[in-house]
Amino acid sequence: MQKTQAYLKENKDRFLTELFDLIRIPSVSADPEYTPDVAKAAEWIKEHLEKIGAENVSVEKTAGHPIVYGEKIIAPDLPTVLVYGHYDVQPADPVELWDTAPFEPTIKKTEKHPDGAIYARGSCDDKGQMFMHLKAFEAMMATGELPVNVKFMIEGEEEIGSTNLGIYIKEKKEKLKADVILISDTGLIANDIPSITVGLRGLSYVEVEVTGPNRDLHSGLYGGAVANPINVLCKMIESLTDENGHITIPGFYDKVEVISDEDRAEMAKAPFSQDNFNSAIGIKKATGEKGFSTSERTSIRPALDVNGIWGGYTGEGAKTVLPSKAHAKISMRLVPHQNSEEITQLFTKYFESIAPDTVSLKVIPMHGGEGAVVPTNFPAYLAANKAMEKSFGKKPIPVRSGGSIPIVAAFESVLGLKSILLGFGLDSDAIHSPNEHYGLFNFYKGIETIPYFYQEYSEIKKG
Amino acid sequence: MQKTQAYLKENKDRFLTELFDLIRIPSVSADPEYTPDVAKAAEWIKEHLEKIGAENVSVEKTAGHPIVYGEKIIAPDLPTVLVYGHYDVQPADPVELWDTAPFEPTIKKTEKHPDGAIYARGSCDDKGQMFMHLKAFEAMMATGELPVNVKFMIEGEEEIGSTNLGIYIKEKKEKLKADVILISDTGLIANDIPSITVGLRGLSYVEVEVTGPNRDLHSGLYGGAVANPINVLCKMIESLTDENGHITIPGFYDKVEVISDEDRAEMAKAPFSQDNFNSAIGIKKATGEKGFSTSERTSIRPALDVNGIWGGYTGEGAKTVLPSKAHAKISMRLVPHQNSEEITQLFTKYFESIAPDTVSLKVIPMHGGEGAVVPTNFPAYLAANKAMEKSFGKKPIPVRSGGSIPIVAAFESVLGLKSILLGFGLDSDAIHSPNEHYGLFNFYKGIETIPYFYQEYSEIKKG
Repeated sequence: MQKTQAYLKENKDRFLTELFDLIRIPSVSADPEYTPDVAKAAEWIKEHLEKIGAENVSVEKTAGHPIVYGEKIIAPDLPTVLVYGHYDVQPADPVELWDTAPFEPTIKKTEKHPDGAIYARGSCDDKGQMFMHLKAFEAMMATGELPVNVKFMIEGEEEIGSTNLGIYIKEKKEKLKADVILISDTGLIANDIPSITVGLRGLSYVEVEVTGPNRDLHSGLYGGAVANPINVLCKMIESLTDENGHITIPGFYDKVEVISDEDRAEMAKAPFSQDNFNSAIGIKKATGEKGFSTSERTSIRPALDVNGIWGGYTGEGAKTVLPSKAHAKISMRLVPHQNSEEITQLFTKYFESIAPDTVSLKVIPMHGGEGAVVPTNFPAYLAANKAMEKSFGKKPIPVRSGGSIPIVAAFESVLGLKSILLGFGLDSDAIHSPNEHYGLFNFYKGIETIPYFYQEYSEIKKG
Repeated sequence: MQKTQAYLKENKDRFLTELFDLIRIPSVSADPEYTPDVAKAAEWIKEHLEKIGAENVSVEKTAGHPIVYGEKIIAPDLPTVLVYGHYDVQPADPVELWDTAPFEPTIKKTEKHPDGAIYARGSCDDKGQMFMHLKAFEAMMATGELPVNVKFMIEGEEEIGSTNLGIYIKEKKEKLKADVILISDTGLIANDIPSITVGLRGLSYVEVEVTGPNRDLHSGLYGGAVANPINVLCKMIESLTDENGHITIPGFYDKVEVISDEDRAEMAKAPFSQDNFNSAIGIKKATGEKGFSTSERTSIRPALDVNGIWGGYTGEGAKTVLPSKAHAKISMRLVPHQNSEEITQLFTKYFESIAPDTVSLKVIPMHGGEGAVVPTNFPAYLAANKAMEKSFGKKPIPVRSGGSIPIVAAFESVLGLKSILLGFGLDSDAIHSPNEHYGLFNFYKGIETIPYFYQEYSEIKKG
């Protein structure tokens, strides 16, 4: 991979310019207002894949946002790596908290990124990480060093649940045949502590609506005699967890994977500073489920969070209204063996059971997906391990992430393929938050590592 | 008052056209965006007062929105009635729930208003009711039948707490000297059941802000280990009331006026149908403080309502965010002897005491005011009673309202004046809600009644 690595160095400035072009397309999948931009981003990737040497490139229509497919088959008997990524991004809200425009990438130096970081929505999640694969591929193609077959499958609905990708992979099993899936949509422990993600949490995401009176009422004339849907919703949300940080939904923990004390002790060896954790996000004190550490609470244990709440008057000043409706978006992070549909049903049943008869309730399932565990003893993992050791100069640590890539479980159940989660972001990159960024170090380190993965994987498979 | 009543009949169509002009000025006091419109409404009233014969008319500047003053002194030895009203209105939000444009008055017939009602923000609260006084005055002036001195004080901050009017009345005690205050900003039991409001609740209104992490976090990476400010706020709000509908703030009930069983029995004689109450606002079941009826819960007992709540992602679709902040607007309706400042302090102290050390809390007092009770045995009340009997053909019932006009308590403590609450709205008029309206019957009945009040009052005072 010498020629490839030389090519990557020579072209690194152009890579950044190209990524910026992609980032400038505000491909927010959650908001219908941005649908044309999502389509534009898909088209951009299609054209780019063609330019760098992929074949059979197409924008594959779905019932929602499209999937971009492309491939390079070097020889039928070589192993095939299916690269998965996504070109859609989270909404930029709250926009007013961004220091720079969310869709105008800006390079700024930070404590964690002394070489600079790209500030923009999607810079890390996942345009920046996905684009590393295109650039690694370009280099290997340009230098004739691509040692395996590659297929690209870049979707536009990861941030809204990958529903249509789930359908697509069922329909295109033959086309998507491969030996392993390669994904960069996770993170490192730190820039000098490489790691590979070996576990992901699942997700159940619902929206709830509590309705009291049929219209907003004057809180003076009615207050005290009519159930206020906000007060009711708060009480119902409060009832979802207890004083020990346990989720109270009956049956919720029934299938939670039990991790042995030995395994917990092993995991606890990963470098972690509670002080750094607290100060990085500006909290005085962490909290969570009794009996577990912060690292465990965000990886091997499920969690419940209200992601949004709204109701009544939220403008300037004081309006004395007893509102008709209150809403919340509530999500649960799940761990292996918990089934997202079952959890959504358990949530719904319980939430309905605690709704008083003074209001009516709607629970709308939004999206869900299963958790995943990656084995650490199969060829692709060993190849990823070696590739990282080569580029970082030290062995990576296997870690479980608290995040979710729901489609990973479907890749295994539908396509029979394991995924390698070779991610280069940092937890501090503020993905899904204002001022999302991605280190230039991380971007280039990813591009450097990926060809090593192909090389190692090809060699291990050759035996 | 025969000439006056004839004049009123002859000019009734013009009165409506004039009111519509005033309603079209969106004088929302809570929202700074509308400040020019609030000023415009003040100017409109000033010009109108001059046109109908008031003297010394002026737009009185304050630190906030202006107060319009005008007067007609017939003779120094005659009794003086100080008419109070407000030209500011509640925000129209949520605008999408209005069937017609909120600031374009539209006449529609309804079950309760077979003669038609004016649909518009402010049609009832309080432009429509306040304007009745201008028209009654105009008629008495035009016919030479005004039997007392009249002073007008029409403010622009009633919906945001009358803070600057409170300062104004302290500064202008001499100018505002009068015998009684007359206000139309309350309601009737029904169009065929006249009533006079003899009690108002006080108000303590606060905004709270709970802050967890210093930025919105990815709920996958952090969920389970970091206190979510929405979940925390919900739990804190839940802790404000117990399962019997009591407010749990220590000391909250200490000064609540205790009403004797006899008085409660007397009040219970006012016509009330729980079924009609429920069906009018579309609820299956009313609720509230244990041991009290619906009428009591909205009049002689305090109440706590969340008027608005917001935090996290509230847009379309699903965003997996663990937000930095959550907010709520919370108000408490108070009863006589409860002091609003003291209650705000008790709330703040308690809310701070229940905030966990994983978050920080801000409590911002918004506005407040005291409750009031009107005696039923002084000259102005007797005059109001007779005036209503004349116009409605039956004696009015004294009732306590759940709403608040905080300045009424200040009128008594600062100016030493009692207020007559001669209101003509209905609880179903949707004030503070989408599709606010005011019956044409009520508008004209008010205009008809007011001159009778002046006549009766003048005669009782003459002895």
